[in-house]
Amino acid sequence: MKTQPLILRKDQERRLLAGHCWTYSNEVDTQATPLKSLEPGQPVEILSSHQRWIGHGYVNPHSLISARIVSRDPNHPLSPALWLQRIHDALTLREQLYPRPYYRLVFGESDGLPGLIVDRYGDLLCVQITTAGMERARGEILAALEQVVRPKAIVLRNDTSVRTLEGLEQKVEVVLGSPEDAVTLIEHELEFVISPLTGQKTGWFFDQSENRARLARYGVGKRVLDVCSYIGAWGVRAAALGAEQVTCVDSSESALQRVAENAERNGLADRVASMQGDAFEVLRELRDQGQRFDTVLLDPPAFIKRRKDEKDGTQAYQRLNRLGIEILEPGGLLVTSSCSFHMGRDTFLRTVQQAGRRAGRSLQLLEAGQQGPDHPVHPAIQETAYLKTLFLRALPAF
Amino acid sequence: MKTQPLILRKDQERRLLAGHCWTYSNEVDTQATPLKSLEPGQPVEILSSHQRWIGHGYVNPHSLISARIVSRDPNHPLSPALWLQRIHDALTLREQLYPRPYYRLVFGESDGLPGLIVDRYGDLLCVQITTAGMERARGEILAALEQVVRPKAIVLRNDTSVRTLEGLEQKVEVVLGSPEDAVTLIEHELEFVISPLTGQKTGWFFDQSENRARLARYGVGKRVLDVCSYIGAWGVRAAALGAEQVTCVDSSESALQRVAENAERNGLADRVASMQGDAFEVLRELRDQGQRFDTVLLDPPAFIKRRKDEKDGTQAYQRLNRLGIEILEPGGLLVTSSCSFHMGRDTFLRTVQQAGRRAGRSLQLLEAGQQGPDHPVHPAIQETAYLKTLFLRALPAF
Repeated sequence: MKTQPLILRKDQERRLLAGHCWTYSNEVDTQATPLKSLEPGQPVEILSSHQRWIGHGYVNPHSLISARIVSRDPNHPLSPALWLQRIHDALTLREQLYPRPYYRLVFGESDGLPGLIVDRYGDLLCVQITTAGMERARGEILAALEQVVRPKAIVLRNDTSVRTLEGLEQKVEVVLGSPEDAVTLIEHELEFVISPLTGQKTGWFFDQSENRARLARYGVGKRVLDVCSYIGAWGVRAAALGAEQVTCVDSSESALQRVAENAERNGLADRVASMQGDAFEVLRELRDQGQRFDTVLLDPPAFIKRRKDEKDGTQAYQRLNRLGIEILEPGGLLVTSSCSFHMGRDTFLRTVQQAGRRAGRSLQLLEAGQQGPDHPVHPAIQETAYLKTLFLRALPAF
Repeated sequence: MKTQPLILRKDQERRLLAGHCWTYSNEVDTQATPLKSLEPGQPVEILSSHQRWIGHGYVNPHSLISARIVSRDPNHPLSPALWLQRIHDALTLREQLYPRPYYRLVFGESDGLPGLIVDRYGDLLCVQITTAGMERARGEILAALEQVVRPKAIVLRNDTSVRTLEGLEQKVEVVLGSPEDAVTLIEHELEFVISPLTGQKTGWFFDQSENRARLARYGVGKRVLDVCSYIGAWGVRAAALGAEQVTCVDSSESALQRVAENAERNGLADRVASMQGDAFEVLRELRDQGQRFDTVLLDPPAFIKRRKDEKDGTQAYQRLNRLGIEILEPGGLLVTSSCSFHMGRDTFLRTVQQAGRRAGRSLQLLEAGQQGPDHPVHPAIQETAYLKTLFLRALPAF
């Protein structure tokens, strides 16, 4: 059966030829190739208006992103062989970089598998399928993952809201084995218990793993505040690095229960406390009490989820960072993150700098980290670079 | 003696209030405070047009940057006490971060000491003074360095062309002790012999130290090409990490002699070879011979020294990177740097990505490094962030 063509309008192939893999609905020549005649997820061959062949991909007529390229080799259409190759390449990179099997195994577009996310917790794979094209190939993908990785269990964590953009339902399904909702992972010699079936995302934020490792270099001092701590990945590490009093702040009671469990598991229960509440409110309260910390860790959820939240979100980042800086001891360390793609790295640094000025401090940026190498950035797809983590020293203003 | 005021024109204080420390000659109210009446390097108090006090600083009527702020505290004018405090703060940070006394001790504006660079090689300090203001304070600065650091020798490596912008002569002077032109430093367990009196800059590029350490994580494979190797900091490290054949390419014969000496010093002489010549020509030759490498390291001098070199320089980066990618094995590692401030991080990544497309490869950005924390970035002064080092994996195009 011949693959359907998808023909672009005049001069709409530039982004694709430059290496990006998305094409938008307004770039398709719907006279020549009506999108409405195609099924969500159907494979297509993308051509320029001059019939130049660009790539194999898949469409979704109901999505703003109407097609994504998966292969630029005419001889490699979407097929089990292609999935095997891509998953094999992804695994090769991670096995080279990680001593233990805990990492993001597949990071969508950056691994040549748009619409697929796979996190690996040893023998368990947590899979997220975010496009109709990948949903259609789901059986082949799962078979390829089983063949290449040989896991004991696979969970589909398809409870992500991005699926609604593609007209897909949100659902969690166990498709292999019978995993429990408590898995232990090891990150840089510490153990953490996570919830792969019910936790945030797939239960763990692998993207900050390298940045957490960097804490060792900078030292945390005696008193540490971990804001938006989730299950304690930063805070427990700070305690392991020698902090005497770590306070984890989160709004979720179940997350803070896991903080206690994870501190205990690593023999650090006496050094890690927690406070439940809104990050802004807790910070204000601590500031007004005159509490001061040697290290403040700010790792909030994305304040800018959509472009239109930009202004409010930027203000929220500035307020949070100002509060964080105000409760730092002179010479203290601020480790501040933004996972909002819509807040660029330069804008984030400027926002934190302004927070510093308002708090009456001069900041020195010691290092700017990003997501770890198991979340590689596709250099032609800006959207794949989203995490910024700044390590700053706060001195009296100069 | 009262310090002279320097009054800005209307609404010209914004950048300074936002945290930057430079003011340009066209921002000064020369009616109220004629620049010509001030001596190069003379201390001033900078005021807005509304007489708002902004900071203590120094001027240079002959420079485009007419004044730099050194202190935002009215009670701390330019004085021996201020230099002592700033140098002490700078040393505290480095001693916290570095197990051995080899680092950039003072990085100008970022350490609140505009116009001063100090590199430390154990008991030897290499000092660069780049502004008339610091030149005027030279005696006090050197005394403060002696008092805080207690070095055995100090060299003024004032042979940098930026001094001409400030009307200062270029000269190398030994001002303390009698240092030899061969000093051994230790970087992450390897020893290197460098030339503090005659080498490039002050003899060593500390700014890449962290990025070189990152090589261990990514692995270098068997065959490594180190382009613009200088004295072998990258190449010798690659050999120490297990590469069997490292080729260092540089145009300088004396640098390549030091490569051989440094390889020998670390017991790696049988693994490190060198080729003298122009980077572009050598790369083309190797490519045309069909030679392929597991890792290619590109660390050229700045191709964009001034804004007007932007177009040509960007093309040069693209050509160099394309050649580097073309001689990589599939799945190989490209470690590519730009130390041009005028080439921003995003532009550099885009340029390398385009080089990849032209070479028929897809790139995955695993990590983006910058200058190490002994070159902290001043978040309000973009000019202090200049080094970009990208770690990329090159796969067949997808």
